[in-house]
Amino acid sequence: MNTADLGLPVDVPSTALFTDHYELTMLQAALKGGTADRRSVFEAFTRRLPEGRRYGVVAGTGRVLDAIENFRFDDDVLDFLRANDVVDGPTLEWLASYRFSGDVWGYPEGEVYFPGSPVLRVEGSFAECVLLETVILSVLNHDSAIAAAASRMASAAGERPLIEMGARRTHELAAVAASRAAYIGGFASTSDLAAGFRYGIPTVGTSAHAFTLLHDSERDAFEAQVVSLGRGTTLLVDTYDVAEAVRLAVEVAGPELGAVRIDSGDLLLVAHRVRRQLDELGATGTRIVVTSDLDEYAIASLAAAPVDAYGVGTQLVTGSGHPTCSMVYKLVARAESADPKAPLVPVAKRSTGGKTSIGGRKWAARRVDGQGTAEAEVIGTGAVPADLADRQLLVELVKGGRVVAREPLDAVRDRHAAARAGLPLSATQLSRGEAVIPTEYV
Amino acid sequence: MNTADLGLPVDVPSTALFTDHYELTMLQAALKGGTADRRSVFEAFTRRLPEGRRYGVVAGTGRVLDAIENFRFDDDVLDFLRANDVVDGPTLEWLASYRFSGDVWGYPEGEVYFPGSPVLRVEGSFAECVLLETVILSVLNHDSAIAAAASRMASAAGERPLIEMGARRTHELAAVAASRAAYIGGFASTSDLAAGFRYGIPTVGTSAHAFTLLHDSERDAFEAQVVSLGRGTTLLVDTYDVAEAVRLAVEVAGPELGAVRIDSGDLLLVAHRVRRQLDELGATGTRIVVTSDLDEYAIASLAAAPVDAYGVGTQLVTGSGHPTCSMVYKLVARAESADPKAPLVPVAKRSTGGKTSIGGRKWAARRVDGQGTAEAEVIGTGAVPADLADRQLLVELVKGGRVVAREPLDAVRDRHAAARAGLPLSATQLSRGEAVIPTEYV
Repeated sequence: MNTADLGLPVDVPSTALFTDHYELTMLQAALKGGTADRRSVFEAFTRRLPEGRRYGVVAGTGRVLDAIENFRFDDDVLDFLRANDVVDGPTLEWLASYRFSGDVWGYPEGEVYFPGSPVLRVEGSFAECVLLETVILSVLNHDSAIAAAASRMASAAGERPLIEMGARRTHELAAVAASRAAYIGGFASTSDLAAGFRYGIPTVGTSAHAFTLLHDSERDAFEAQVVSLGRGTTLLVDTYDVAEAVRLAVEVAGPELGAVRIDSGDLLLVAHRVRRQLDELGATGTRIVVTSDLDEYAIASLAAAPVDAYGVGTQLVTGSGHPTCSMVYKLVARAESADPKAPLVPVAKRSTGGKTSIGGRKWAARRVDGQGTAEAEVIGTGAVPADLADRQLLVELVKGGRVVAREPLDAVRDRHAAARAGLPLSATQLSRGEAVIPTEYV
Repeated sequence: MNTADLGLPVDVPSTALFTDHYELTMLQAALKGGTADRRSVFEAFTRRLPEGRRYGVVAGTGRVLDAIENFRFDDDVLDFLRANDVVDGPTLEWLASYRFSGDVWGYPEGEVYFPGSPVLRVEGSFAECVLLETVILSVLNHDSAIAAAASRMASAAGERPLIEMGARRTHELAAVAASRAAYIGGFASTSDLAAGFRYGIPTVGTSAHAFTLLHDSERDAFEAQVVSLGRGTTLLVDTYDVAEAVRLAVEVAGPELGAVRIDSGDLLLVAHRVRRQLDELGATGTRIVVTSDLDEYAIASLAAAPVDAYGVGTQLVTGSGHPTCSMVYKLVARAESADPKAPLVPVAKRSTGGKTSIGGRKWAARRVDGQGTAEAEVIGTGAVPADLADRQLLVELVKGGRVVAREPLDAVRDRHAAARAGLPLSATQLSRGEAVIPTEYV
């Protein structure tokens, strides 16, 4: 690992400490008890969708693969664990040579999911798999929550582009992952330079109210911006009086003005007025960008308004009411002994309290109707029925510890658009409802 | 900056790209227009508290100081900005030598805040201050949201310790900052090893359901854990049948068993039953830890239950319904010209739409009554009234670009406890309400 590049979110740093303390104490006890090498199958899934949501979006898989690849215990980390008595000497020794050597299958990133969908399956020794729980869930829970909100917003926006601009509303590195997830969900660009740097997502932006306020007059500000950024720039027109600012904007930039941005007020009303005014001033090609506390409902309400692009911040990075998605990582099967040939036994928690799950290593397939529209998420633990053999959802991601399924972000984004288009039409209704297709267990 | 240590969240990496694209285009236009050097004052504040909340908690200040100190544009970053035409050549040249050289004052970390409180004030040239907006807001908005939720939970928990265990429910690095904010708000420990490594927060944890399921029987699992981790360990007792597991736990570990953990079911009911059973078995010193989807309301509802510690995950890291806190960073005053002696002019957006703010460089003081209890948050732009002179809230954090106010996390935690204790008693009511003291402008 080249740590010299880690100053910015270029590479994933060693991810070994993004781990709950108890993963290591379980490892210690299993090593001591002789069960650490039992072949084990863990699955990541969610018992339900966030309330009212009709589908989930798998996002973060690419980051999970980076995290697994970089899960290493270097000397600094081992020293910390030793100094704080987190685990004993033999466990530290085992950790020093840790490399995940197992297999990972999962839903391809961008795919949709439903309650029970085994979105990730991790198989190897108990010891090597259990350690990955925390970081896998951190990534999937965060990124999938953002992507699901983004997908709903993208449906609501239709052909109009969405700009992700929520960096200031969430942790600075969560923001970078949020931009990535938003792009998967259908956003076109981001304000976050780190997301451009790390993932090649197009970055955009021109000016804020501070820029206007810096100048002695709005005219000075607009002139300075047009001189420096060109007539194609976007002028922010709601610092003082919108109508006066629009007039001034076209006077300064001419009818070639790229766009005006409105960041406050009754956007529906203001957008109509501004469009009329721009047209009257001959700026018929000048676009209108709106950016004030939008969510999928506000976006939908502007469908008939003369708006050309939406900027979304807070509601995107907070998952529009659902900032996480209750993904869990459960041991579903394990060998009877440490013998690598020992058969797998399905296991599951069975206490009362609503947290039960279904044991056994699972396959999943999406059954479609005659028109190719999704009809049911079918999940099973035995042989895959012949009619579902070519509809299986899990793909191989890591084989014997080696990542085998890297892909460009645009492929993930396209996959999501296709997956969403394959759902029944009611999937993209914004009203609250149940999962748009049922989960069937066979 | 020693980039070799950046593999884990030890040092803050260069933070220059945690920045919205428009900060740089504003810089370019201001450089070109000759306004970049105007002395400017930016303030971070929030127009309102999250709905129903009675006070806010300033958290993240220490991380902001790290971010300012590490805000550098190295060659990789400049190459990226050049290749993507983010800004022009002269701007890149200016960025290459960027170091913040201004002053920062702010509420000390851990202090409480109210609508309008100027929690951070950044002063310098427009150019050097505007660039810091995004990363300052990312940190404050995230960390303060988590700390506010933590503070409410800590009030509800009273003397019982709270364990932060939400790493798996949020972005892996947001989780580290969340642990830090939770500690400030009053949590005692964390499950997150990275938070222990980075901030020295005590880490705790023993085992999950997977550990029990790995074994051929619950007895095997308990025995393996006790052999490895000792009788003082915490056994998880709700994998199968709680009563049977409690009986077994005491049989295996003896009455010296440290604790049992309950992670599902009706905690109020189950805690009482388990306590009775433990006492009957002679394990009167064995503690009960509960950890199932707790928030401040659930914690409060368990006040009369025989519970010894609470583990909180999802609701902590998602701010218990308010994952961000709408902090903004506004230009409130700037010089009339680039002359360093030019007087400051107060400025403010004044368009309609609810996003107006008050111009001018502000002071803030907390007025107290005869008993020393907070009575009002007083904010002004002129001279500080004599009776409030020694109640001022802003302290110097950065002087001429140099951080002057680093402090240990325990001092911040103590400050928060004292600040909360200085509020009227209704501050810690969990019911929804208004800010517990009014904000007065003079």
